[in-house]
Amino acid sequence: MAKQKIVLAYSGGLDTSVILAWLKHTYDAEIITFTADIGQKDELDGLEAKALATGASKVYIDDLRDEFAKDFIYPMFQAGALYEGQYLLGTSIARPLIAKRMVEIARAEGATAIAHGATGKGNDQVRFELTAAALAPELEVIAPWRSEQFREEFPGRAEMIAYAEAHGIPVQASAAKPYSTDRNLLHISFESGILEDPWFDPSAESNKGMFVLSVAPEDAPDQPEYVELEFAQGDCTAINGVPVTPLEAMEKLNELGGKHGIGRVDMVENRFVGMKSRGVYETPGGTILFTAHRKMESITMDRDVMHLRDSLISKYASLVYNGFWFAPERLALQALVSESQKNVTGTVRLKLYKGNVIGAGVKSPVSLYNPNIATMEADPTQAYNQNDATGFIRLNALRLKVSSGVDQTK
Amino acid sequence: MAKQKIVLAYSGGLDTSVILAWLKHTYDAEIITFTADIGQKDELDGLEAKALATGASKVYIDDLRDEFAKDFIYPMFQAGALYEGQYLLGTSIARPLIAKRMVEIARAEGATAIAHGATGKGNDQVRFELTAAALAPELEVIAPWRSEQFREEFPGRAEMIAYAEAHGIPVQASAAKPYSTDRNLLHISFESGILEDPWFDPSAESNKGMFVLSVAPEDAPDQPEYVELEFAQGDCTAINGVPVTPLEAMEKLNELGGKHGIGRVDMVENRFVGMKSRGVYETPGGTILFTAHRKMESITMDRDVMHLRDSLISKYASLVYNGFWFAPERLALQALVSESQKNVTGTVRLKLYKGNVIGAGVKSPVSLYNPNIATMEADPTQAYNQNDATGFIRLNALRLKVSSGVDQTK
Amino acid sequence: MAKQKIVLAYSGGLDTSVILAWLKHTYDAEIITFTADIGQKDELDGLEAKALATGASKVYIDDLRDEFAKDFIYPMFQAGALYEGQYLLGTSIARPLIAKRMVEIARAEGATAIAHGATGKGNDQVRFELTAAALAPELEVIAPWRSEQFREEFPGRAEMIAYAEAHGIPVQASAAKPYSTDRNLLHISFESGILEDPWFDPSAESNKGMFVLSVAPEDAPDQPEYVELEFAQGDCTAINGVPVTPLEAMEKLNELGGKHGIGRVDMVENRFVGMKSRGVYETPGGTILFTAHRKMESITMDRDVMHLRDSLISKYASLVYNGFWFAPERLALQALVSESQKNVTGTVRLKLYKGNVIGAGVKSPVSLYNPNIATMEADPTQAYNQNDATGFIRLNALRLKVSSGVDQTK
Amino acid sequence: MAKQKIVLAYSGGLDTSVILAWLKHTYDAEIITFTADIGQKDELDGLEAKALATGASKVYIDDLRDEFAKDFIYPMFQAGALYEGQYLLGTSIARPLIAKRMVEIARAEGATAIAHGATGKGNDQVRFELTAAALAPELEVIAPWRSEQFREEFPGRAEMIAYAEAHGIPVQASAAKPYSTDRNLLHISFESGILEDPWFDPSAESNKGMFVLSVAPEDAPDQPEYVELEFAQGDCTAINGVPVTPLEAMEKLNELGGKHGIGRVDMVENRFVGMKSRGVYETPGGTILFTAHRKMESITMDRDVMHLRDSLISKYASLVYNGFWFAPERLALQALVSESQKNVTGTVRLKLYKGNVIGAGVKSPVSLYNPNIATMEADPTQAYNQNDATGFIRLNALRLKVSSGVDQTK
Repeated sequence: MAKQKIVLAYSGGLDTSVILAWLKHTYDAEIITFTADIGQKDELDGLEAKALATGASKVYIDDLRDEFAKDFIYPMFQAGALYEGQYLLGTSIARPLIAKRMVEIARAEGATAIAHGATGKGNDQVRFELTAAALAPELEVIAPWRSEQFREEFPGRAEMIAYAEAHGIPVQASAAKPYSTDRNLLHISFESGILEDPWFDPSAESNKGMFVLSVAPEDAPDQPEYVELEFAQGDCTAINGVPVTPLEAMEKLNELGGKHGIGRVDMVENRFVGMKSRGVYETPGGTILFTAHRKMESITMDRDVMHLRDSLISKYASLVYNGFWFAPERLALQALVSESQKNVTGTVRLKLYKGNVIGAGVKSPVSLYNPNIATMEADPTQAYNQNDATGFIRLNALRLKVSSGVDQTK
Repeated sequence: MAKQKIVLAYSGGLDTSVILAWLKHTYDAEIITFTADIGQKDELDGLEAKALATGASKVYIDDLRDEFAKDFIYPMFQAGALYEGQYLLGTSIARPLIAKRMVEIARAEGATAIAHGATGKGNDQVRFELTAAALAPELEVIAPWRSEQFREEFPGRAEMIAYAEAHGIPVQASAAKPYSTDRNLLHISFESGILEDPWFDPSAESNKGMFVLSVAPEDAPDQPEYVELEFAQGDCTAINGVPVTPLEAMEKLNELGGKHGIGRVDMVENRFVGMKSRGVYETPGGTILFTAHRKMESITMDRDVMHLRDSLISKYASLVYNGFWFAPERLALQALVSESQKNVTGTVRLKLYKGNVIGAGVKSPVSLYNPNIATMEADPTQAYNQNDATGFIRLNALRLKVSSGVDQTK
Repeated sequence: MAKQKIVLAYSGGLDTSVILAWLKHTYDAEIITFTADIGQKDELDGLEAKALATGASKVYIDDLRDEFAKDFIYPMFQAGALYEGQYLLGTSIARPLIAKRMVEIARAEGATAIAHGATGKGNDQVRFELTAAALAPELEVIAPWRSEQFREEFPGRAEMIAYAEAHGIPVQASAAKPYSTDRNLLHISFESGILEDPWFDPSAESNKGMFVLSVAPEDAPDQPEYVELEFAQGDCTAINGVPVTPLEAMEKLNELGGKHGIGRVDMVENRFVGMKSRGVYETPGGTILFTAHRKMESITMDRDVMHLRDSLISKYASLVYNGFWFAPERLALQALVSESQKNVTGTVRLKLYKGNVIGAGVKSPVSLYNPNIATMEADPTQAYNQNDATGFIRLNALRLKVSSGVDQTK
Repeated sequence: MAKQKIVLAYSGGLDTSVILAWLKHTYDAEIITFTADIGQKDELDGLEAKALATGASKVYIDDLRDEFAKDFIYPMFQAGALYEGQYLLGTSIARPLIAKRMVEIARAEGATAIAHGATGKGNDQVRFELTAAALAPELEVIAPWRSEQFREEFPGRAEMIAYAEAHGIPVQASAAKPYSTDRNLLHISFESGILEDPWFDPSAESNKGMFVLSVAPEDAPDQPEYVELEFAQGDCTAINGVPVTPLEAMEKLNELGGKHGIGRVDMVENRFVGMKSRGVYETPGGTILFTAHRKMESITMDRDVMHLRDSLISKYASLVYNGFWFAPERLALQALVSESQKNVTGTVRLKLYKGNVIGAGVKSPVSLYNPNIATMEADPTQAYNQNDATGFIRLNALRLKVSSGVDQTK
């Protein structure tokens, strides 16, 4: 009889290597590993051989960078999503894509379960599993770190290394960093370890070594650099006059942002599983894109559409953060967002300088900004009659006057 | 019979000087001038003599800076108000205070009208008049710039100068700037003139001369400076260990922010009267305060309170921007905001560097952040059981699984 | 040279007849009348002759009932729109359609203005004119009742009758009712006159004569009647097993609702122009449809989609009420609503009895309600594990426990 | 050494009697029973003896009806809370009160745990436990129905009866109803059993026997009855001219509503734990109060306050439904609600007739409704100038005109 098949999200690191072997043994199953290239710049060479050597029956390594940029990052940036006023959701937005591809592989391979190495305290487990629930409710999800048996077997790193050695799992010796990281096309995150003290200052000179995608503002060039982003219906389609795919846009903006010390965020955030946690992020390209998009909207988006959309950003960002990317309420919000972007077309000029993204001009063939109306000078088009303001104010004031006339505590 | 009395918001500049004389003549009324010191740093010396010379029957010059900081700026910053994602509402928040004081003077003096020199195209007229409507519906409001008679009499600056000379109004010759400004304790704004072209770049080297409250980031010190802000229930109460009143806090933060090139914003915004308009702002102290407050909240505010409040920021900011400070819906929102700030107490450390306000640590005696819960290390308090996540995820996933099982286009 | 052309919304009543003649004379223009059949059941026979006799150069009488039901009523009911918790927006939703058709006629005829007979105190003027602004900003809008000249010429009904007689305008003598009404396919409204006293009781036996579309609950049949509505993607597509167009649905439901005393509302509402006003409505079919739709959603709409949509009903309803049907923010909200309705398919059974619309069963081929999950009995499918609730509750409780542990006023 | 003490929510029925004995045995603990009188009209006589006979070490029976009406029902009705457009939250609002009192008893008695008999599938377990978490995070909560051991020991009713007999627990033989109920001062609910089929019609003649608090509309008096409710700051303070406490108000309104067939709701709702479930409710007094309150607000609440509050009802209702009564975000919303009610004072007249609650007049000493402003007749106060509407409309239309002028898909 055929063995059960399990698709495992596999990085080649110690944790998922041990999980691979442990799953195979514990479930007496065929383990199919899946590794997504979402721009993490990890060494993917040799990963297939390593997975097979560790016991995988089949190995998938897929380049999802284009899909990640086009179908995940871009729609989210159309929404202007920002979690708790600070976080650009770099990790959150990647998980649904990875889980979606795992579901596709599981179905193609006839697997009955998918497994991941996320811990029981974080948001990633939720994002993986809600995606699986939405796309493939029939699939079992195995989260070894939530298994008491697994946690007892591996109370610490030492036990994992011993297990790896005992099972012939090739593990590269690397000095453990005093924090954990997660990197993709949109950002790199840092958490845990020394970062758990919220009074610890990652921006201090002595901690410079931690950062990966950007120089410190202090180390950025003394000369500002200008960049022009072109947008079509809410998406960045060209940079400095050169057409770009979403992937190319992110890569180019990451390069520019990193060079100029842009996009570092240090915050305490609220996890979906209930606790506050400290995270440090580098999102160089995303920060430029976010700023540019808002400026593009400023002359092309209707006021009331903007205010409506803005009132829903907090909700949208929470949905992405919590892993509800494939939930129907995110799709409903996205429909509103898409409609809001129809006229967001034009060009934004930005000045990048030592951590700052400075607006330096915006223009659009479909601009809703009409200086003839706003001007304090004579308006040749007569589009605005100052007398109209009298009636406008009076009717807006009417209810205030009536309220003022009653003693509200009578 | 006693003449009608009119209270005029008076700056001593050409416009309000001409309006003073014009009102007195047109209405055959006594004109009481009112000038508020809200931190605009204008020359107030000699203003009384000038007003009397221009025809005022009585002159009020009141220092409202403490009230402005305490009862207007601070409550607004508790709300985290940001208009259209960028504007800290520096002009908007000042108008209701000025109008409130005018109402008080009108009542004390038995005046039947108040007058202002705001144009018919801007937001300020609305803010003045909605405040008056809410506080004193019985008062008439006179807005000469919305009077066709006035506009015909004064089609341009030349006619105003001629009128001033003809009526013995002392006017100082000053080169007109190619833009207009409004300054107070919270910010200075720039608009009109050369700024009406949204492709014009105020951040360019050649335009440095425009800015008043801050150096350019390029000209800020090469050395970062650290500052610590203490908060009690949402308000900044000490800076670098020294207790401060709200006014002192704003002055100290303006000094710090200005020195480090912090708080410049260049945007196209949507006016309440219907058009888009370009504004440039310097809000050095406000920008530091805004950032510090959000970081203070990050470890002291409950997650769901924050998300609720965040979903209402867009609404709150619009109310302030549009002049509804004394409207009952702003008061209702403020009640929610006040409740949300009860635990926002602690200390934030910031690093100021060339335009950047960088978080460098946060702590609180009432912190809701518990590293023992969030840690990936063993938690001695056992406050979090990873097994719980399984049930949490499963029940959150339940509705997604059920939805997934039906063909939604059947 | 060709005369200016004006398209007038014309009912054939005294007001718009006088306006027709007055416009023609005052503007020396050709007047093209437009009358929409939106189900008001007025006598449209003879209207063309009357308009021509009154001076119209051309007469349009268009049956817009299908379009009204399909493109206006149905999308609005998908949103579950209810203004201030009570009003089903029967008048509000009709105005944009009428104005849209006037714009089409104006363009086809080369007219430069459109005119209407709505007063300066109501919402209808706003709805007409915002629609015109959105669809044809180049068109002038003439609102005679806001013209001081017109109001002086016609201070009361007597002057209008005199003018009509003097100008040979055929006016039917009819006893003026002590209130005004507006009727269409969705409802009839009553306001003004005796209704202005909010203590006046329209439901009293003595006021029965006012109502048009429904009997009083007291006069409805003593036997309940059951009706089944089928929905497809949010729209009612069949009644009692018989497929219906949107128009047919409204007609059938009006008949049923009217017979059973359903859909009377008596309220004080807040007009967009700033004052409160008293309105009485009969919306028999709409009330049945509204109730049925909510019940259909209850088993086919995802929880979080519903809660999101519900949080936006107040906004959506205000937009329709205020006349922003063709505004981009309404279109953005409608995109969200449409997405939310994809699975709203199935059958609702209702019991109609003396003013009550009583749910009597609901079913769907795409139901999200699964009694196996909800049941307190043993669940053969094991879709729900009671143990999961422990983790679910613990993680939901986590932040409450942490908050509880700090003294929030320290 | 002293035994552990556990406070058990005890009804005297089979389930909680068995749980009492089981807890005592399983935990070797003293069991203190608590029974709240919240208007469920159960037989409380003899309960103390029964609890002691079953093994309780101490018995609390507290009349919480006044507190329930005053501190729970009334504040919730100020908010106008309605879950999913239909449910008045009768069960939801009672749980936090019961749990709060249990916490108080546990602290007074030095108990370390509280226990309840709610199942693992429902909302009540969540409401109990979130309240305990918020008020007493140190207390353990025991939910036997979520214990696998307990569920294995008691797979059905037969095993419970056997256990009761074996342990000398006095159990009254009563025919099990084919559904379960929960009753208090605000409502009675019905669910499970025959109600699990959503096509089942509880309103059918044959199912009349199920209902408890109200007659069917068909069986209500043929004569309408008028009732007047007086409100002060959002709370009903007198009925038909007689001052009432909150408790008296609920009792009187229940009597009136029940007599006239008012307040039955049949719905499928979304539980917090993830599934849809069918519930039938009788809320006679609450339905009258809800309707009266909305009508009182209609003439005393500012428009924009109402729209703001209305946009938050869905959120508020979800918080109550989900058990977050003592969560800080509910308190923040309540602060807004309280502020909104300051002027909600006056008198509402209602006509009760066969299931209908019909508005029959509203008046207030602090009414914001001014017929002089709204009237189509001449307004002697000149509070409204029709000319003002022109400017009002033009400025509201401005952005629509500008948008209309650009090709949004260019």
